[in-house]
Amino acid sequence: VISDRRDERRGVARLEAFSDGVFAIAITLLVLGIEVPDVDADRLGTALSDLLPSVFGYFLGFAVIGLFWIAHHSFFAVVERRDIRLLWTNLLFLSLIAAMPFSSGLIGDYGDTSLATIVFATNVALAALADRLSETEARRAGLLQPEAAARMPPFLSRNLLIPTLFLCSIPIALLSPGLAQLSWLGAFVLARLQHDYTEGSAA
Amino acid sequence: VISDRRDERRGVARLEAFSDGVFAIAITLLVLGIEVPDVDADRLGTALSDLLPSVFGYFLGFAVIGLFWIAHHSFFAVVERRDIRLLWTNLLFLSLIAAMPFSSGLIGDYGDTSLATIVFATNVALAALADRLSETEARRAGLLQPEAAARMPPFLSRNLLIPTLFLCSIPIALLSPGLAQLSWLGAFVLARLQHDYTEGSAA
Amino acid sequence: VISDRRDERRGVARLEAFSDGVFAIAITLLVLGIEVPDVDADRLGTALSDLLPSVFGYFLGFAVIGLFWIAHHSFFAVVERRDIRLLWTNLLFLSLIAAMPFSSGLIGDYGDTSLATIVFATNVALAALADRLSETEARRAGLLQPEAAARMPPFLSRNLLIPTLFLCSIPIALLSPGLAQLSWLGAFVLARLQHDYTEGSAA
Amino acid sequence: VISDRRDERRGVARLEAFSDGVFAIAITLLVLGIEVPDVDADRLGTALSDLLPSVFGYFLGFAVIGLFWIAHHSFFAVVERRDIRLLWTNLLFLSLIAAMPFSSGLIGDYGDTSLATIVFATNVALAALADRLSETEARRAGLLQPEAAARMPPFLSRNLLIPTLFLCSIPIALLSPGLAQLSWLGAFVLARLQHDYTEGSAA
Repeated sequence: VISDRRDERRGVARLEAFSDGVFAIAITLLVLGIEVPDVDADRLGTALSDLLPSVFGYFLGFAVIGLFWIAHHSFFAVVERRDIRLLWTNLLFLSLIAAMPFSSGLIGDYGDTSLATIVFATNVALAALADRLSETEARRAGLLQPEAAARMPPFLSRNLLIPTLFLCSIPIALLSPGLAQLSWLGAFVLARLQHDYTEGSAA
Repeated sequence: VISDRRDERRGVARLEAFSDGVFAIAITLLVLGIEVPDVDADRLGTALSDLLPSVFGYFLGFAVIGLFWIAHHSFFAVVERRDIRLLWTNLLFLSLIAAMPFSSGLIGDYGDTSLATIVFATNVALAALADRLSETEARRAGLLQPEAAARMPPFLSRNLLIPTLFLCSIPIALLSPGLAQLSWLGAFVLARLQHDYTEGSAA
Repeated sequence: VISDRRDERRGVARLEAFSDGVFAIAITLLVLGIEVPDVDADRLGTALSDLLPSVFGYFLGFAVIGLFWIAHHSFFAVVERRDIRLLWTNLLFLSLIAAMPFSSGLIGDYGDTSLATIVFATNVALAALADRLSETEARRAGLLQPEAAARMPPFLSRNLLIPTLFLCSIPIALLSPGLAQLSWLGAFVLARLQHDYTEGSAA
Repeated sequence: VISDRRDERRGVARLEAFSDGVFAIAITLLVLGIEVPDVDADRLGTALSDLLPSVFGYFLGFAVIGLFWIAHHSFFAVVERRDIRLLWTNLLFLSLIAAMPFSSGLIGDYGDTSLATIVFATNVALAALADRLSETEARRAGLLQPEAAARMPPFLSRNLLIPTLFLCSIPIALLSPGLAQLSWLGAFVLARLQHDYTEGSAA
């Protein structure tokens, strides 16, 4: 039995390691959205200042992926076993994280348009929903440490706040892309609150 | 002897970690197939809808690499030792996984052609064959946990179903690329069946 | 209690693994700054010699990221626990490391300009400051091994030498970019000195 | 003392993990050397056959990086401790591995020129020399398991065969790039021989 539990832990550890790989690569690929200019040396100043929106897109993408990584990190700290469903819901989640170099690049290049703002918000909302799905399925299948599962909030309370925030920013983006992007700051406050339930192991 | 087995396990663990790195990078590089458009802001909508086939290529590549990762993951859970042949057959397999950002990008840009469909199907079929080769060699060399090896199906039964499926889709692609791509869905059903033999440790 | 400490160690290990992933990817993406020329075969020689500044940018970036990796490596060897602040200060630090393929690429393409030299120096100085911030916060929060914390130098002594060196190179770069770049060699000497305090575990 | 040895092993493990990250990323970035064509659908066949040299460059790069990875893997299996010199010689080695997506891309695009062949051969020879340097320094500093160190061949025998092979291919490349590339196959035979001394732990 001890050996079985060790095998299960090892399986979860490999899942975490793979996920961390995807997180680390996606977050580092963001830099490809800031392209080294191809201009004459005396126009480098102007070219660099034209890159400022891309730099904003870079740090926005970094903060958002970082946020998801911290949440994933504290969630998997309480996962004891995995099943095939968790592998697939986690892959779905990762496919949405790995898409963020594209969406952040879009914000970098077209950040003042409603459309780019909506694409980014949709990407984040879908990733947050996929994350909730993993969490809900893992609880239902009894894959979590019992004490941790008991400490977690019920599905319909805090769990949907972040996706809701990003979904709500979509109509705002139609009126003002800037205001919608400002509203995303709320995600970092909410994340701080959600983090609490794993306080024992991650904070 | 305990120390030897630990060294062997550590060797296998490093092989898994390296493979996971390649999987994670290949799957995340898929996003480079969806290029941020370079158009005027008012034509962004059209440019984004032109990207839909690339988004399809992205999710297709993600699902296929994910499928191979899950199979690799459940296979290596029962590998106790490695030898130099396994290192090389695994590298051959990884070289075909790492080629998928190219083949998926081809599907994204030329998905309605027979040629792109055939290149992708060939890539997947070769990867699946290399995977079978690793598995067969590992069994022959006695590198697996004895109980797990006994539970595995004989070589010529289920093991060749996925490569056969993709090879069969090649003539179909000559008639209809769309139909060939549809037939690939069968791989996910087959994968679910094949997964069973490691049920004890991975499901 | 033993189990709790193991969980905490596991949390730190995952943080290290994620950071190593970002380091490894950022350092390897540097190669994208050396582009394969697209010229006629008989002009390849000229095209390759035009790449020499990019090769210099590549090795400079490699050495600087390598330096930060070694420092991070020896610092985290004495971290016993993590808290949410450490996760975020570490992410801030990583966002500055992951930006280096851009700054090194800039040095490769515009290394003889003051502007590119200043951008690179600023990037390194900010990364070094973020690194100091992580370290200072971790000490204040008591996350380090007590013996190691006692061996470390007080905040205002050696800790700020590297950021100061790079900040000082900024005015020098206005006069002579080459001289500023030469002064960066000092960082490698300073790094050697700073390394000493974890001698017990890393040297 | 047991705890110290565990700390040392953990330090070596982190060095291996970082190196594996660089290997995995460099080997996967090779695929960026095979660019998805940008042509009309009816000219895709021609465009794909024009890519064949890039595909050759891809598999060549994969085999060479794979070879180095296997050697690194079997060498680090006998490293018990690390020192600051090993960190730096290993970084030097990794900077030459991480440069291979460039050199392989050059072979893919200009494989029939002496110049590209020489650049690739030089890159591989330098990487092999850096690898030897790590190994020699590690032995001199007593970082290896004593039994393994005793089993290893003396420095001037087999250790320099691979760099010598690639250095010798440089003058051949001046006469015939194809012949030089053919001579590289010898590296795989030599690698098989060199692998023997860690037979106990890696084969």
